[in-house]
Amino acid sequence: MTADRFAGVLVPVATPFGDDLTPDAERLTRLCRLLLEDGAGGLAVFGTTSEANSLSAGERMALLDHLIAAGIPAQSLMPGTGACSVTEAVALTRHAADHGCGGVLMLPPFYYKAASDAGLFDFFGRVIDDVASESLRVYLYHIPPVAQVGFSLDLIGRLITAYPDTVVGLKDSSGDWLNTAAVIERFPGFSVFPGSEVFLLDGLRAGSAGCISATANVNLAALAHLARHWREPGADDLQATATRCRRLIEGYPVIPAVKAILARRLGDPGWGTVRPPFCPLAADRVAALAAELTEAGFGDILGAAADSVPSAA
Amino acid sequence: MTADRFAGVLVPVATPFGDDLTPDAERLTRLCRLLLEDGAGGLAVFGTTSEANSLSAGERMALLDHLIAAGIPAQSLMPGTGACSVTEAVALTRHAADHGCGGVLMLPPFYYKAASDAGLFDFFGRVIDDVASESLRVYLYHIPPVAQVGFSLDLIGRLITAYPDTVVGLKDSSGDWLNTAAVIERFPGFSVFPGSEVFLLDGLRAGSAGCISATANVNLAALAHLARHWREPGADDLQATATRCRRLIEGYPVIPAVKAILARRLGDPGWGTVRPPFCPLAADRVAALAAELTEAGFGDILGAAADSVPSAA
Repeated sequence: MTADRFAGVLVPVATPFGDDLTPDAERLTRLCRLLLEDGAGGLAVFGTTSEANSLSAGERMALLDHLIAAGIPAQSLMPGTGACSVTEAVALTRHAADHGCGGVLMLPPFYYKAASDAGLFDFFGRVIDDVASESLRVYLYHIPPVAQVGFSLDLIGRLITAYPDTVVGLKDSSGDWLNTAAVIERFPGFSVFPGSEVFLLDGLRAGSAGCISATANVNLAALAHLARHWREPGADDLQATATRCRRLIEGYPVIPAVKAILARRLGDPGWGTVRPPFCPLAADRVAALAAELTEAGFGDILGAAADSVPSAA
Repeated sequence: MTADRFAGVLVPVATPFGDDLTPDAERLTRLCRLLLEDGAGGLAVFGTTSEANSLSAGERMALLDHLIAAGIPAQSLMPGTGACSVTEAVALTRHAADHGCGGVLMLPPFYYKAASDAGLFDFFGRVIDDVASESLRVYLYHIPPVAQVGFSLDLIGRLITAYPDTVVGLKDSSGDWLNTAAVIERFPGFSVFPGSEVFLLDGLRAGSAGCISATANVNLAALAHLARHWREPGADDLQATATRCRRLIEGYPVIPAVKAILARRLGDPGWGTVRPPFCPLAADRVAALAAELTEAGFGDILGAAADSVPSAA
């Protein structure tokens, strides 16, 4: 792993919306600051958890402009810049590169299914060639349960070979540890991030760079602690606890649940707002989730530590 | 079926690209003119076959502006205006409505899978409410093999009930005739278009409005003839012939194959260009397709009738 690579626990930062569903750049900036203070290894804004594909390309770029202008370090940002359209992927990636972002996380084009490796290689090649930035660092985003289109080992290898200084890592949200392990083993020096903290410790032991996880929006402190101390005694217990918390939240629709927890934790009900096609978690479900978390000993992520959190004002 | 509804064989018009992959508005306009001359019941531009999701929203709007300015009647146009982002779906739909398009064909948001009917209803409700155009006519685009997210009978019913003057039809590209038949039966007066001419005759007999089919880009004359004469003796033979042609083309990747045939037919090799993640049909495959079509008696769609087609000049 080199100095200019991301490592540790990265957060696919949730995107806050106003009552009229417009993105709220101020609230997003505040959450980004808190997450960096809590030990985030990077901010993977505009990911799946961020409802990025529920935003227009213009909305994504305006939010990124705001974050940078507000002082969030560009090197800490790994914005999602994938799109179904190569035109939009180029525009988003160039915009991120021009800002000096530490990297970008790129979905494959995900409308047409059964895309060939040759077609996907051509897509990524065109983005990288068109952006033509020496500082660009691309992390591939493999999430077949959602995108349906993914990255085969062969495609990953072809992209690394063609763009060794640019294609430097991958987020694996397949949920398939055998795939994650295969990518780590096949491509030494490649920065692999499992898409869930469930694989954080196994990943680090196998040579991964950390993880990028939805639930890091709400459980970052514990995960960052594990990522810092994974070689020490007790790491297995920390992992077991982190996994329990994750599984509990996964009992609910994850994105609305993460936003409901943020609303509670930050004392700001507006955080519960989601864009359709998502529905916000109903009040009784929020109460049930909160009760489950408290009973399982995870009450702190609901804001027991809220005293240390700046108010929305 | 009312006078302001689309009917017959609609074409999801292929989108031509230049060597640099930019959309070619002039070539698109020429094809649209030819298709209207050949009896298209409407032009469903920016559909799946059009590689619409490989275009940015801005590219789609610029192409529509050009078509209208070039004299393609707005009432003949049913542009695809669906998007994963409600913001983009509103912008595209408003743009089409402002142009006076005869209707729009709307995909559901297709990134997040397992979207609930409630969330999808909210998505479409917001688009229709935000656009707030009395003349807007929405055709729902059900294509679960590609979008994965689709329209249940219950969701269709809820949308028709809430927006009876706006939500007026559906394209069913499920490939499942039982589903198409169920929609036709359940919602009398709703304009249902199977997504393949394979169901053209069965559909018309059951009460469908026609069909919207990829292969209508190249086999329109025969399909429009069948749609005009479906009550007459010989219709079953016409259908069998149309189905044979369709099945033959389906033996190849359909979008590259349709564009390869257009390239041959229009004497314009540039038509073969596709955007990644698609790959153009290789020359030997084009030759094989042409040979198969000729042998099966479909040589005319390759341009035996090219004499009547205006040149690219």
